[in-house]
Amino acid sequence: MQEFTKFPTKTGRRSLSRSISQSSTDSYSSAASYTDSSDDEVSPREKQQTNSKGSSNFCVKNIKQAEFGRREIEIAEQDMSALISLRKRAQGEKPLAGAKIVGCTHITAQTAVLIETLCALGAQCRWSACNIYSTQNEVAAALAEAGVAVFAWKGESEDDFWWCIDRCVNVDGWQANMILDDGGDLTHWVYKKYPNIFKKIRGIVEESVTGVHRLYQLSKAGKLCVPAMNVNDSVTKQKFDNLYCCRESILDGLKRTTDVMFGGKQVVVCGYGEVGKGCCAALKALGAIVYVTEIDPICALQACMDGFRVVKLSEVIRQVDVVITCTGRDGGRPGEHLDRMKNSCIVCNMGHSNTEIDVTSLRTPELTWERVRSQVDHVIWPDGKRVVLLAEGRLLNLSCSTVPTFVLSITATTQVPSQALLLLCDESPSLSCSPDEYVASLHLPSFDAHLTELTDDQAKYLGLNKNGPFKPNYYRSVPLLGAQSLFFRWELHP
Amino acid sequence: MQEFTKFPTKTGRRSLSRSISQSSTDSYSSAASYTDSSDDEVSPREKQQTNSKGSSNFCVKNIKQAEFGRREIEIAEQDMSALISLRKRAQGEKPLAGAKIVGCTHITAQTAVLIETLCALGAQCRWSACNIYSTQNEVAAALAEAGVAVFAWKGESEDDFWWCIDRCVNVDGWQANMILDDGGDLTHWVYKKYPNIFKKIRGIVEESVTGVHRLYQLSKAGKLCVPAMNVNDSVTKQKFDNLYCCRESILDGLKRTTDVMFGGKQVVVCGYGEVGKGCCAALKALGAIVYVTEIDPICALQACMDGFRVVKLSEVIRQVDVVITCTGRDGGRPGEHLDRMKNSCIVCNMGHSNTEIDVTSLRTPELTWERVRSQVDHVIWPDGKRVVLLAEGRLLNLSCSTVPTFVLSITATTQVPSQALLLLCDESPSLSCSPDEYVASLHLPSFDAHLTELTDDQAKYLGLNKNGPFKPNYYRSVPLLGAQSLFFRWELHP
Amino acid sequence: MQEFTKFPTKTGRRSLSRSISQSSTDSYSSAASYTDSSDDEVSPREKQQTNSKGSSNFCVKNIKQAEFGRREIEIAEQDMSALISLRKRAQGEKPLAGAKIVGCTHITAQTAVLIETLCALGAQCRWSACNIYSTQNEVAAALAEAGVAVFAWKGESEDDFWWCIDRCVNVDGWQANMILDDGGDLTHWVYKKYPNIFKKIRGIVEESVTGVHRLYQLSKAGKLCVPAMNVNDSVTKQKFDNLYCCRESILDGLKRTTDVMFGGKQVVVCGYGEVGKGCCAALKALGAIVYVTEIDPICALQACMDGFRVVKLSEVIRQVDVVITCTGRDGGRPGEHLDRMKNSCIVCNMGHSNTEIDVTSLRTPELTWERVRSQVDHVIWPDGKRVVLLAEGRLLNLSCSTVPTFVLSITATTQVPSQALLLLCDESPSLSCSPDEYVASLHLPSFDAHLTELTDDQAKYLGLNKNGPFKPNYYRSVPLLGAQSLFFRWELHP
Amino acid sequence: MQEFTKFPTKTGRRSLSRSISQSSTDSYSSAASYTDSSDDEVSPREKQQTNSKGSSNFCVKNIKQAEFGRREIEIAEQDMSALISLRKRAQGEKPLAGAKIVGCTHITAQTAVLIETLCALGAQCRWSACNIYSTQNEVAAALAEAGVAVFAWKGESEDDFWWCIDRCVNVDGWQANMILDDGGDLTHWVYKKYPNIFKKIRGIVEESVTGVHRLYQLSKAGKLCVPAMNVNDSVTKQKFDNLYCCRESILDGLKRTTDVMFGGKQVVVCGYGEVGKGCCAALKALGAIVYVTEIDPICALQACMDGFRVVKLSEVIRQVDVVITCTGRDGGRPGEHLDRMKNSCIVCNMGHSNTEIDVTSLRTPELTWERVRSQVDHVIWPDGKRVVLLAEGRLLNLSCSTVPTFVLSITATTQVPSQALLLLCDESPSLSCSPDEYVASLHLPSFDAHLTELTDDQAKYLGLNKNGPFKPNYYRSVPLLGAQSLFFRWELHP
Repeated sequence: MQEFTKFPTKTGRRSLSRSISQSSTDSYSSAASYTDSSDDEVSPREKQQTNSKGSSNFCVKNIKQAEFGRREIEIAEQDMSALISLRKRAQGEKPLAGAKIVGCTHITAQTAVLIETLCALGAQCRWSACNIYSTQNEVAAALAEAGVAVFAWKGESEDDFWWCIDRCVNVDGWQANMILDDGGDLTHWVYKKYPNIFKKIRGIVEESVTGVHRLYQLSKAGKLCVPAMNVNDSVTKQKFDNLYCCRESILDGLKRTTDVMFGGKQVVVCGYGEVGKGCCAALKALGAIVYVTEIDPICALQACMDGFRVVKLSEVIRQVDVVITCTGRDGGRPGEHLDRMKNSCIVCNMGHSNTEIDVTSLRTPELTWERVRSQVDHVIWPDGKRVVLLAEGRLLNLSCSTVPTFVLSITATTQVPSQALLLLCDESPSLSCSPDEYVASLHLPSFDAHLTELTDDQAKYLGLNKNGPFKPNYYRSVPLLGAQSLFFRWELHP
Repeated sequence: MQEFTKFPTKTGRRSLSRSISQSSTDSYSSAASYTDSSDDEVSPREKQQTNSKGSSNFCVKNIKQAEFGRREIEIAEQDMSALISLRKRAQGEKPLAGAKIVGCTHITAQTAVLIETLCALGAQCRWSACNIYSTQNEVAAALAEAGVAVFAWKGESEDDFWWCIDRCVNVDGWQANMILDDGGDLTHWVYKKYPNIFKKIRGIVEESVTGVHRLYQLSKAGKLCVPAMNVNDSVTKQKFDNLYCCRESILDGLKRTTDVMFGGKQVVVCGYGEVGKGCCAALKALGAIVYVTEIDPICALQACMDGFRVVKLSEVIRQVDVVITCTGRDGGRPGEHLDRMKNSCIVCNMGHSNTEIDVTSLRTPELTWERVRSQVDHVIWPDGKRVVLLAEGRLLNLSCSTVPTFVLSITATTQVPSQALLLLCDESPSLSCSPDEYVASLHLPSFDAHLTELTDDQAKYLGLNKNGPFKPNYYRSVPLLGAQSLFFRWELHP
Repeated sequence: MQEFTKFPTKTGRRSLSRSISQSSTDSYSSAASYTDSSDDEVSPREKQQTNSKGSSNFCVKNIKQAEFGRREIEIAEQDMSALISLRKRAQGEKPLAGAKIVGCTHITAQTAVLIETLCALGAQCRWSACNIYSTQNEVAAALAEAGVAVFAWKGESEDDFWWCIDRCVNVDGWQANMILDDGGDLTHWVYKKYPNIFKKIRGIVEESVTGVHRLYQLSKAGKLCVPAMNVNDSVTKQKFDNLYCCRESILDGLKRTTDVMFGGKQVVVCGYGEVGKGCCAALKALGAIVYVTEIDPICALQACMDGFRVVKLSEVIRQVDVVITCTGRDGGRPGEHLDRMKNSCIVCNMGHSNTEIDVTSLRTPELTWERVRSQVDHVIWPDGKRVVLLAEGRLLNLSCSTVPTFVLSITATTQVPSQALLLLCDESPSLSCSPDEYVASLHLPSFDAHLTELTDDQAKYLGLNKNGPFKPNYYRSVPLLGAQSLFFRWELHP
Repeated sequence: MQEFTKFPTKTGRRSLSRSISQSSTDSYSSAASYTDSSDDEVSPREKQQTNSKGSSNFCVKNIKQAEFGRREIEIAEQDMSALISLRKRAQGEKPLAGAKIVGCTHITAQTAVLIETLCALGAQCRWSACNIYSTQNEVAAALAEAGVAVFAWKGESEDDFWWCIDRCVNVDGWQANMILDDGGDLTHWVYKKYPNIFKKIRGIVEESVTGVHRLYQLSKAGKLCVPAMNVNDSVTKQKFDNLYCCRESILDGLKRTTDVMFGGKQVVVCGYGEVGKGCCAALKALGAIVYVTEIDPICALQACMDGFRVVKLSEVIRQVDVVITCTGRDGGRPGEHLDRMKNSCIVCNMGHSNTEIDVTSLRTPELTWERVRSQVDHVIWPDGKRVVLLAEGRLLNLSCSTVPTFVLSITATTQVPSQALLLLCDESPSLSCSPDEYVASLHLPSFDAHLTELTDDQAKYLGLNKNGPFKPNYYRSVPLLGAQSLFFRWELHP
């Protein structure tokens, strides 16, 4: 489990990769609280449960919560119309017929929509949770009620965690041929424990930075014999999930925790990658005065042209009201900076794991911690100065705000054609695929947006197919790894 | 009590004038829940309570909650540094010595800061609540513990309401000489029940539209023998409270209830007064496409120049994702419009009372209501179409978001010099006052903003005093009513 | 003539009040150059000219330029559709029949559209120029050709200036009964030289700060026996002309002179009135980092909330790339500040007359001036440092950019109903007029904007007439002066 | 010459690639007019000229204009401080010693700064013009006076054009070993006429779309035996030149030609690549209502999220006030669309060559053309409707505005390390180069921007060198072509 937080990333673990101690955040969700705290303490593994059709091919907290979970899924579906339309378009032809997918992701209403779409397209699915705290028990119950073999609950022990994964893979008379992973634990488990199954996997779709990192290492070591799709670096994830998701959630996270007014506030944003760009845009738009720190001269020059002063942290630390880290770096904020912050300065992290803010340096005998609200601590200096630390340095938007379903939809939708592509790869490994453009086009109706179509003459003049792809190849997807495998990497698009 | 909602207003009842059924909103507050729902059901009027100093000169829900309330007050103080600095500056000279103020306002952490400032400046205060649901019991307890004669709790009956007011006014050996009112109920009570006290009141400060309306009526009828300060129309309230407060809170209210993504959403804002301007600015800044409806050609032309399409509601109602009313009008949204909204359209009100959205027209046998989350109802048409109604048409930002303490601070701070001015009015009725500029200057240090000072030559050239006032008289304050009284109205400033 | 620059103003002389040495600016106009520099040097007063209908009731530079001038007028008409529609609506009823108007304004294509509208509505007009340099000779020729008695050319001597005014007023068999003035010179001339005519004037419409100031003085002295309409303080001028006109023209003026890139530039804007607000909004929008200086705490607080740091000039003078003055103050920029500017710093004035920037302090033996382009001087310090001074400190947007015709149209259109109102005032002095709302509504069709109409019920509920006025009286127009006269002042609207 | 316009491009030929009939644009330049129109008509090829040092190794219009040209160069230097600092830093070590560069670019003040930097770093240079109209004669004179072998003047014949190129290449006793090209004509000439020289060229730097396209074709055909650096696709050009340059110049181009007011204008921007993004951002920021058309679903989705309605042109063509093409497509605007535009609609092109707007379809007997101002034509329909066509459909910003020197500086600066890199490539072909980060860092001091430096620990944690490169390899530079050559392509960076 420790491997989860081992690898750095510029843009952080966006998606759903919530940090482990995120459990206390549910009170910030707009949804009604998902879990019944008065639940009995019997482990789900001990319980005998069957759904209304008599099946007991699952393990969840409480199958009776299915109806409530279904309502949450339905609310999510309203903002994931792309997946629904994909479901409708492809339902007849069952393009995923024959796919036997084992999945390991956060189990939320949004991923439920994804899983049910995979099923609707013909796949058989077995699912576990990639995080021991993040499962919405009601949603898991709704999935189980609908017939998905789901093994997950909130508050699993580490032993439970691997037990659930194993229950997905190790099945008599059913052998997975596809993996959909978030973090790499499932992939690792199959690779280590069931090498024979692993060899016959037709494709892996991985969406987290950590998981992709692990796949690269495997590939470097010459041991990745399976085609793997890196959804993390897809255009749809990078350019939409990171930028827009943070633009939407930074204000929300700050408001829900501190009720801070943005107008006129001085804010320093550490890092001007996609995450930083999103934060800066939103804060500036609401009247904050934003400073940027950067190590990369290109991002720094962009910040300048976008109207932000690029400074060293030490230049502004005494005057800012809010510090937001988006660096993807470890230990970016040593004690000296915290020492010099002014009273009531708010400190939070949008970038990566706890390590961006040097929280441990604040756990000293000199400093007093006072929990003033859920997710809000005052760290009090001997002279009475207070620094307001949010979510103990964990990701603010995942801990203290909700993330727009629509944006999650873009990434989730990407996984469906990815699965389909990998199924086909066996037969046509040279396939020039552009799932990103397809996925983007599925989301346009939500905006009532109308694409212009090239005339034949124009298409010819431009040397393009009328239906795309419209980007040069190097923007979209590149087979990266040789051997007998294909590794798609979707590069960034401007 | 019904008079509360009787009078229209362009800009709505901003400030703290929360609607009556606001009680269910506490779950949206970032503060921990203020009230212990398992509290015993004994009426505070029946209880015997004393604070730690042995005084029982108050009536609150539970004096034991004082410590928790004190913490909330302290948090509020951090964003109300102007009041605190006023407290510090004027504390020595006690400018309000001799003031015996009866107050009737929402009792929240922010008003507690105001009350304690009045006390620190030498005033004696007795306080009741202007709304039977809005009292934060813990804050009332903290005030009582600190020695303020406060009579208020959450969930008063109407009888309780007037009993509390009466307890403030009707005291042996103590006679109020100042009124600080929000809504006019206290003023009305004193005027009707204690005419002898009323005659000796040296000044009334009123901050709500409704209360001001009632004062105007009294004045028109020749019965307002007391100088009254209209804080509602002060520059500091109109130009800051309305515009910036709505800019800050519209996004927050929508996010906390619906998690809606703003990017690309089509929104129609009905009304382009200060409230509408604030909403439009925030929504556009976060990537929404905003349409405006207006009846007033000047506001309409401003909307045009600011980059919004000005339309009739019928032109866009089929395509918008969100409808926000800020008209100050009754019945602005008849059933026909709701009929034509698209599925999942969100409808909310930032403007005035429930009547802006024609909620009653939705209470029909044909339409099904489904409460999906706190403050969020789905109204379901026979064909399955759902309209998402927030806060049952009550003010969104007061019901579903928090309002920035800092902005409230501006209005609250205005009340202190208003009290002082009225105290002085007796002696110098021709006083050319500019509390608005003074109040604004008190808030500048929060931004580390530094005013430029005129040189003697420049001041002379401009015909100004170096310390202001800087605006022509008609921008600031005008004595409106004759008789033996003075009525200050602070006009708008651009 | 010296009186022109005597009076201060917060917002400066926007409209067309170009400074005297503006003559060199023609090269910046997008229109082809208006004047034929090779023109003969004979004074127009010496020439015998007749238009094509045989009339010689005018005095212009060269009647043969009429056709070119007509084209410029036609181009202007396209952006002044409100005046044209007013022309069409009211043409039948000739509401200005009987009006004999003497006018004294800048003579440009835009004012030509106004003059011809007045004529179309039934007025008889005689016109001179309010500035010796600003006349577009071709436009004057076109007016003369069309039958307007116009007496104006570019490059008048001071003697010519008063001769032209006199030719308008002093006519056998024709006696003016209305004055339309810009600056007050015409009014002054009639008042002093023709007191008998002055007494019978039915109304004065004045649009400049200076002229209004002079009228106030006259009124204070009890000598203003004529109703006067202060268009300068009308909502339509203040809220549109100042704010939006500056937002549109600040970027234009800087680009045309210096080609400066805005992205990332540090700019200090001195003054945050309407002019400053417009400049700040535009610069921030294009990626500049903007600082504000202010003397007025209310404007300063607005700047803070709008996301600008409020500083003293000395705090930022060493680091800024551009300094823009909008203070309405004299000598705002003493030598010490210029001394500390960095190399290549651009200095310009959007606010008032030359005196905002202390240009004379730069005319010293130590400093070298180098004219690098038209309207652009490098002032060179002994150590080689260069400060880039635009338009020698005169108004940047009038000197170096064009001003949007549409915005001018709003103010110009205001003058037509003003004339009509004053005609009527004699008969109905208590008339509650709202020309500003009417004028605004005339401009909405340009934006295809559709006003919402109140239902009868709503109007009744709001206590409003369905057709307005929608603003409280104190927003719109107030009769200010007693005697037998009326003085309309239109107050500001938020 | 015809090849110039043959190749399509998404983003158009930004940089300096002015279209051929751009000659009439000089009047829009803020600089004084570069050419003396009364110049004698003798061809420079016939003239005998020597500079003040007695050299006649050049061919320009008039060597006497050198001083004026020098001043223009000096003005440009002020905004190209990165090149100047590069000059200073590397001057001692003369990194380009041994480089014998033939160049063929637009000859402007900005390129003069580049050429003189190359010389200062040790290179020998011979230069011709890549466009027969774009040469600033004074600048060419200044270069010649400074000793650069420059062969160029404004108004060359096609024969002159190739003669000048040949004079650069075909020199006794001097053999070029580097090519700096803009458009590919010089490369083509050397390749065809001097194959022996071509073989020994150590590197080509090409910055235009067209030129890069020709190199790719050469490479595909296996005939590119020389390493070539594609500056056109460098991060610094794509992300800065295209986006920010258009953001800065679209407003300028529209203002200088039409004085149009932006507030409330409805504008459709065809294409949402970098150019379209820049145009949309600027227009929205100034209050225009912007619609977008797109063929590419990813760009379309970005437009949605950024707050623009994505439409087909036919949906909005009747209502828009301005049409801007940025498609890189041919014939994007057939007659039908122009037919349906409203009166006074402005049409212009920011994207590519004339062909984006179907100008020829407007050259019909039915339609009357009227040249109303320089670069502004009214195309008049039989019913009187006028469409305002700017620059006859050529690139608006290059024809009618100036382009910020600072942005040009970024691309120009990129060429210096490119030259150096190519010099080194011979020796170390596997060099992992990152000139883009270096170039960006050189521009930061202009903004007083301060980079943060990684600590050793952080660098180690991130697996980065403290001095960069900070981007993964695929963001920066990729060797594209095998054989014995290297072809650097700098890919896009987010």
